[in-house]
Amino acid sequence: MPSTGIDVEARIAGLGLTLGQAPRPVASYVPAVRVGTLLFISGQIPFREGRLIAQGAVPTDVSIESAKEAAAQCALNVLAAARDALAGDLNRIRRVVRLGVFVCSAPGFTDQPAVANGASDLLVRVFGDTGRHARAAVGSVALPLGATVEVEALFEVAPD
Amino acid sequence: MPSTGIDVEARIAGLGLTLGQAPRPVASYVPAVRVGTLLFISGQIPFREGRLIAQGAVPTDVSIESAKEAAAQCALNVLAAARDALAGDLNRIRRVVRLGVFVCSAPGFTDQPAVANGASDLLVRVFGDTGRHARAAVGSVALPLGATVEVEALFEVAPD
Amino acid sequence: MPSTGIDVEARIAGLGLTLGQAPRPVASYVPAVRVGTLLFISGQIPFREGRLIAQGAVPTDVSIESAKEAAAQCALNVLAAARDALAGDLNRIRRVVRLGVFVCSAPGFTDQPAVANGASDLLVRVFGDTGRHARAAVGSVALPLGATVEVEALFEVAPD
Repeated sequence: MPSTGIDVEARIAGLGLTLGQAPRPVASYVPAVRVGTLLFISGQIPFREGRLIAQGAVPTDVSIESAKEAAAQCALNVLAAARDALAGDLNRIRRVVRLGVFVCSAPGFTDQPAVANGASDLLVRVFGDTGRHARAAVGSVALPLGATVEVEALFEVAPD
Repeated sequence: MPSTGIDVEARIAGLGLTLGQAPRPVASYVPAVRVGTLLFISGQIPFREGRLIAQGAVPTDVSIESAKEAAAQCALNVLAAARDALAGDLNRIRRVVRLGVFVCSAPGFTDQPAVANGASDLLVRVFGDTGRHARAAVGSVALPLGATVEVEALFEVAPD
Repeated sequence: MPSTGIDVEARIAGLGLTLGQAPRPVASYVPAVRVGTLLFISGQIPFREGRLIAQGAVPTDVSIESAKEAAAQCALNVLAAARDALAGDLNRIRRVVRLGVFVCSAPGFTDQPAVANGASDLLVRVFGDTGRHARAAVGSVALPLGATVEVEALFEVAPD
């Protein structure tokens, strides 16, 4: 039975969303590490089908709306990484605990929360109230591979 | 009995400080999430009585001293959020574990530690030795609503 | 017996690396806080024998190669701080859980992963598979004391 009473994969499909393969790390680390009931997910950038869907700073290179969609893609990639770490069973997630959201920002851009909501809203749509999380959203001068947004995450999961 | 042997609200009042209402999140997340004995607090910006007390980059828009005061306000807002999450009882805090401090910085500004000390010093004044924490303080090109500083926190709390 | 089956100090020496004294915090916080089996290490900058080995932004002031070496030094300083927190016994480390890596970046620099690998690779060389960690690597407009890179860390450690 799902920890949250929600079948997560069914919910994702019902929302018309698709979980692809978890992106491979672009460096020498791993996508996820579990310690006890805490599952740490590495920072994800908005890969979709092998390419970044948004590159550059908001709002000069990328609109807020496009950046928000990119943040949602990051959240999907977070879920794909979590699924791999949980032997395919996203229903073991009990709670979304924390997101760290970094938004590539032109100087003077101050609506990082609107962009980060792309990730937060997606997780609440998928998990309901157990998707509500603590969050830090900040601007960044530059992100890996020119990504517009990067999202890292912490989940509480059911013990083995 | 307080976990730290200190009555936290009394200490706050004794220092001449005021805990206001916890600021409402500016987006679709929650101010705090507890998992076991860990309490994660969302990034707080320097709201005081409904308005930001510092906006813009250090040192071009805001002096180090004003930014330090803003960081202290962020720490107060962290405590207000923690109080709400702990059913009003800050005495359940056992330890301040970690702060993440983001300082809106002009290029070449490198005294983020001095600014972040505004938050760190306040927590040590309130909690004494149990207020001493691990910390990451970094510069940010831009922060939500133009805030000069953002502080997120992790506490250890007594179990239910 | 080491938690990981590896004698960590011997491995460090065997790699030709040197753990110096843990740098003193440049502000009012502490280098490490342990809560249960989690050990949080404060952000470390690339001090070696009392001075920073890299200052300024990549790639304008510092090359990627030099920044990568600086990240490795940050990782060594993380280990020095962990050693102090573990009463000198790095063998109590069970797992490297997470790194947060901040790279001082010129606008348009997007190879933060290459720089962060300096820290990640060092930890994998020291710990083997238990050194593999979750990671967030992002660009920062400016870092404390002009450091080129800052690395914070989370370890799982054996209980007392």
